Amino acid sequence: MKPVNVGLVGLGTVGCGTVSVLRRNENEICRRAGRSIQVSHAAVRDPQKERSCDLSDITLTTDPFEVVDNPEIEIIVELIGGESLSLEIVLRAIRNGKHVVTANKALIAIHGNEIFSAAQEQGVTVAFEAAVGGGISIIKALREGLAGNCIEWLAGIINGTGNFILSEMRDAKRDFSDVLAEAQARGYAEADPSFDVDGIDAAHKLTILASIAFGIPLQYNQVYVEGISALEQDDVEYATELGYRIKHLGIAKRVDEGIELRVHPTLIPERRLIANVDGVMNAILVKGDAVGPTLYYGAGAGAEPTASAVVADIVDVTRTLTSDPHNRVPHLAFQPGSLGSPEILPVERSETAYYLRMNAVNRPGVLAEVTRIFGDLKISIESILQKDRGDHESVVPIIILTQHTKEFRLDQALVELEKLDNVNGKIVRIRVETLK
Amino acid sequence: MKPVNVGLVGLGTVGCGTVSVLRRNENEICRRAGRSIQVSHAAVRDPQKERSCDLSDITLTTDPFEVVDNPEIEIIVELIGGESLSLEIVLRAIRNGKHVVTANKALIAIHGNEIFSAAQEQGVTVAFEAAVGGGISIIKALREGLAGNCIEWLAGIINGTGNFILSEMRDAKRDFSDVLAEAQARGYAEADPSFDVDGIDAAHKLTILASIAFGIPLQYNQVYVEGISALEQDDVEYATELGYRIKHLGIAKRVDEGIELRVHPTLIPERRLIANVDGVMNAILVKGDAVGPTLYYGAGAGAEPTASAVVADIVDVTRTLTSDPHNRVPHLAFQPGSLGSPEILPVERSETAYYLRMNAVNRPGVLAEVTRIFGDLKISIESILQKDRGDHESVVPIIILTQHTKEFRLDQALVELEKLDNVNGKIVRIRVETLK
Repeated sequence: MKPVNVGLVGLGTVGCGTVSVLRRNENEICRRAGRSIQVSHAAVRDPQKERSCDLSDITLTTDPFEVVDNPEIEIIVELIGGESLSLEIVLRAIRNGKHVVTANKALIAIHGNEIFSAAQEQGVTVAFEAAVGGGISIIKALREGLAGNCIEWLAGIINGTGNFILSEMRDAKRDFSDVLAEAQARGYAEADPSFDVDGIDAAHKLTILASIAFGIPLQYNQVYVEGISALEQDDVEYATELGYRIKHLGIAKRVDEGIELRVHPTLIPERRLIANVDGVMNAILVKGDAVGPTLYYGAGAGAEPTASAVVADIVDVTRTLTSDPHNRVPHLAFQPGSLGSPEILPVERSETAYYLRMNAVNRPGVLAEVTRIFGDLKISIESILQKDRGDHESVVPIIILTQHTKEFRLDQALVELEKLDNVNGKIVRIRVETLK
Repeated sequence: MKPVNVGLVGLGTVGCGTVSVLRRNENEICRRAGRSIQVSHAAVRDPQKERSCDLSDITLTTDPFEVVDNPEIEIIVELIGGESLSLEIVLRAIRNGKHVVTANKALIAIHGNEIFSAAQEQGVTVAFEAAVGGGISIIKALREGLAGNCIEWLAGIINGTGNFILSEMRDAKRDFSDVLAEAQARGYAEADPSFDVDGIDAAHKLTILASIAFGIPLQYNQVYVEGISALEQDDVEYATELGYRIKHLGIAKRVDEGIELRVHPTLIPERRLIANVDGVMNAILVKGDAVGPTLYYGAGAGAEPTASAVVADIVDVTRTLTSDPHNRVPHLAFQPGSLGSPEILPVERSETAYYLRMNAVNRPGVLAEVTRIFGDLKISIESILQKDRGDHESVVPIIILTQHTKEFRLDQALVELEKLDNVNGKIVRIRVETLK
């Protein structure tokens, strides 16, 4: 059969990785797909720029629409990032009846509903495995591998930079800002690191995972997001002492009243496999009602791991070229007409356990004052750790692990606690998940 | 659209689990597949037997061929196990133009080549996700998710009973036979536990994984198999002391000369995620050239985890009902005409590191005698641990970790070592993999 022609838009890190992988594994990929796959055209900003991949036989242009409008091309791979020009490119490719592969999580999280509805109308596929978890085929696992399950919850380490920072804070007892500077120097973090450390990147990915897990439209604006920049070394150490690790998790959970969608630093019992995922690696833990807990682990970023997912999507699309659109795997795992609309709960209505650290004056009766507040609000305490018991009247940290409670109740406790004369300053609050 | 009719052959643990999952998640599954899926007929040995699942609206029969020959049924699910009647059933279903889903690893490992060639001829699909790793969608991950990669190696904990035994031996410092008895009492191990503890079950699964990873025919007879029944508590403890865990792994590795296929107890550095997979859980670590290491973790057995994979296969088949056979995902990941034939290497030609434990007489010069043998054979020693340094002339264990070497060379060393007057009895030899 004649080769499938692929047009690349964007030849940065992932674009070059894709060209390299397609070339190096040409034989292996053709043995799998039954057709050879070749990048025939690529749109780049600067055609003169030195690139690490072999561009022979690839026609370069600076006009992305020249690629998108080329009738010889069957699959468009969008790798320019951002959500403005990329949206235009993807929609035009769809209108031209082409299948699309993209690694662009912001684009899918924010404009996915519009994109998939256009694709549905045209009977083409938009594949986006590379948008979440790099080379981990988590989209496929959720959409196909767990198709028999009602997904109860998922929790993922889905930002490698953030995980690198937290791993270093723990292993090397270094401070946040110190490790962040190193991550930037090593090229892990963006020059503007806010996408990583403020949780925006993780929120984009969580939006996509939740939609596929539960069969709901993409709702990026409803995700509660908290980054890792406020984490202090002390809390990393106390968490370790209590038998926990702190990870920056994206959590999507189905509860009776609706869906919880939240990204925040989280204490996890150290015995959980996901608590031991270190450095730039990603992992997603998924709980299905039939299968129980399953975990998917791998490199969440980087040229070739991301290219691995891009190429898998290209092979998938190639394999579905003859199948009736109705019988293909739906974009959001569930048929377009059957997406649900459970309420996405504001974080105040979510329920979890909490780690709290407060600075208290070392006086008789302080612990009684503190615990009375929890008792009055019907919040059970799991354990209390009182550190560095110093002199009378000195300020000492008190660490409290609560049992599960609704967040609005915990918020009330914090207000009451901060009013106490014997408690100084702001109380540190980190959520705890047992992930069972 | 009208529902897809499924015929079950076998209503044991997994069969009942499949009926329960299809019923409980009927709505969720239909939202995904776009059609409802119903078990219309089931063949059982004893129709009177009490079963844990709801059988209403399912026509029971004692004749499996009545189900297989029923023209109303599109998908046959084979869940009787064994490899004689099941082969007959699957081949007849294929001849009848029906798609087949099976959880039968022995059947696929031993008769898969014949089955897939018949399926290819008829243009039907035989899906077998449930045959390996229970609810972990490892077949899909290898076949589709990693389709862009050249797979370098994979290593899996693919027998839950064996892993439960090893976990207990380590955590509770119990002996093999003691834990095995408990596993049998708890229903994890078969009454005849040889499939689990002798590695036969793992070898079936490894055969399937290797074939899909490398694009080679199924070659069960070529797998080197070593069970866990000879493992001693001492070695579990020394391994821990050296910073390792012992796991029973199935390993498939592509090397210059061919393919290594082996199942045996293995020391793994304790920092590796897979070293921390405990109890009856399974995990498969896969190294692709583009993606790097990826890991897939979940329940490897049990009614509903296995049913999760069976139902995923049913949904997959439903989704491909209209696609041209040529464009479907090939059974063994690679197109039937393009399977390779690299040599499957005998275990003597495989290369790995080794843990050795020998009983030596505590005399001056013994260590020199021992290490000279390694030196002469050009085997480098990684570390030596001499335990319980007792009285002069007493017998003490010497533990040696070697660096990587060909197994035939290590075999020579063992012969030489066992000839030494100062070394008593047989030397314990366990392979070591760094899994990097």
